[in-house]
Amino acid sequence: MANKLKRRKHLTKPIIILVEPQLGENIGMSARAMMNCGLSELRLVNPRDGWPNSNAIAASAEADKVIRNTRVYQNTSEAIADLEVVFAASARVRDMTKPIINPEQAVEEFFLLSESSTRIGVMFGCESKGLKNDDVTLADALINIPLNPHFNSLNLAQAVYTICYEWFKNSNTASSFENTAFKKPPLAKKQALINLFEHLETELERSGFLRISEKKPSMKRNLRNMLIKAQLTDQEVQTFRGIIRSLCSHKNPLD
Amino acid sequence: MANKLKRRKHLTKPIIILVEPQLGENIGMSARAMMNCGLSELRLVNPRDGWPNSNAIAASAEADKVIRNTRVYQNTSEAIADLEVVFAASARVRDMTKPIINPEQAVEEFFLLSESSTRIGVMFGCESKGLKNDDVTLADALINIPLNPHFNSLNLAQAVYTICYEWFKNSNTASSFENTAFKKPPLAKKQALINLFEHLETELERSGFLRISEKKPSMKRNLRNMLIKAQLTDQEVQTFRGIIRSLCSHKNPLD
Repeated sequence: MANKLKRRKHLTKPIIILVEPQLGENIGMSARAMMNCGLSELRLVNPRDGWPNSNAIAASAEADKVIRNTRVYQNTSEAIADLEVVFAASARVRDMTKPIINPEQAVEEFFLLSESSTRIGVMFGCESKGLKNDDVTLADALINIPLNPHFNSLNLAQAVYTICYEWFKNSNTASSFENTAFKKPPLAKKQALINLFEHLETELERSGFLRISEKKPSMKRNLRNMLIKAQLTDQEVQTFRGIIRSLCSHKNPLD
Repeated sequence: MANKLKRRKHLTKPIIILVEPQLGENIGMSARAMMNCGLSELRLVNPRDGWPNSNAIAASAEADKVIRNTRVYQNTSEAIADLEVVFAASARVRDMTKPIINPEQAVEEFFLLSESSTRIGVMFGCESKGLKNDDVTLADALINIPLNPHFNSLNLAQAVYTICYEWFKNSNTASSFENTAFKKPPLAKKQALINLFEHLETELERSGFLRISEKKPSMKRNLRNMLIKAQLTDQEVQTFRGIIRSLCSHKNPLD
């Protein structure tokens, strides 16, 4: 546990690079996705509508730390100049002899690389055409997000989010979510449940629900099974007993 | 491998339910995210700007199969009536005794449930406020996407995409689903449960149990939460309704 936490602190975070993005909305949404996942360094290569961009700011939903620090470059080479390993997100499998990995494998690489403080970037191309081959060429590996082969049309910000999400998810393997599949409430003690069963059964004897005596044992078992399944808390047992008392205290005028 | 492919074919796909979505763009982007991940059934509860919505169509990027088949409902109960297990996506951890799982754990549940052809839905709330407590109450479990605790502000379509992405990713790999929260169905359809809730609530109104009007909404939610936890079968729902009828049909002589 201590190890994992220590490791997480020293992770170098991947830098997100959008090459010739067209829509400010997508830049803003990408910044927001990054910030949701604890990433903060965004670079833009030659954004179509210039920079700063009010649509980007509007769409960032206050991911202003990311937007304020965004740097703009004239070309891809400049944008990656200070990095050591660069990945290219690509929906198409290109005819290049480069490793092609999925997002999960990519973040595994990020973690390995960050052990040696390697500076990592992930490039994404423009909305309409993706990365140019010349840009992909600059990458050490391609990241392909495996999606529906019959409809593979991920929005730019969602592609960015996919990488950020996998990064955050896997950098937090020590997080408290590991063992919280089931929120454990303080459950009622069995005695409280048995009291509830007996209360209900007494009332059902009285009301005639359990009148067929040969069926009575199995009916009681079914009722108990049903209530046991609910994993009731003490408070809920009390509520349930209140319900029984309440229902028994009046004569239903419709009956 | 043959086994995996065979199994995948038979997966029942989760249905995505957007409750009171505000922006058509987000509906369209959600449809697009779904289609990228091979999901196709989208339901809307009371969309703010009506339906059909030209912004939704524009943003769907030709995910027209999803958009064309989208069905609109007046309220959440109607939208989930024919489903057997429902999950609620929630950014906040609510004060309810329901299982809270992450997206990966959720898709494991989907796969397990789909082995018995259980119909599954995942609900998402509106952009500004998420799901109302009354909607969350109808869910069997909450899905929480673990993100940056200092900036947790995922866009609606990205939240939808997260679940769809995990579904698609994991539907392509085998895994062992041993520790499941959910019993083997057949579970009652939600409509049967909602009828049960309404039956019980009507009787409790009549008997005075719900007489304090400012407490009524939270009391009803507590009752519903308690019964949802029991994962009732159809037979059990019928038994329960019989119990209510029986308890209401007599005057308890001791009271």
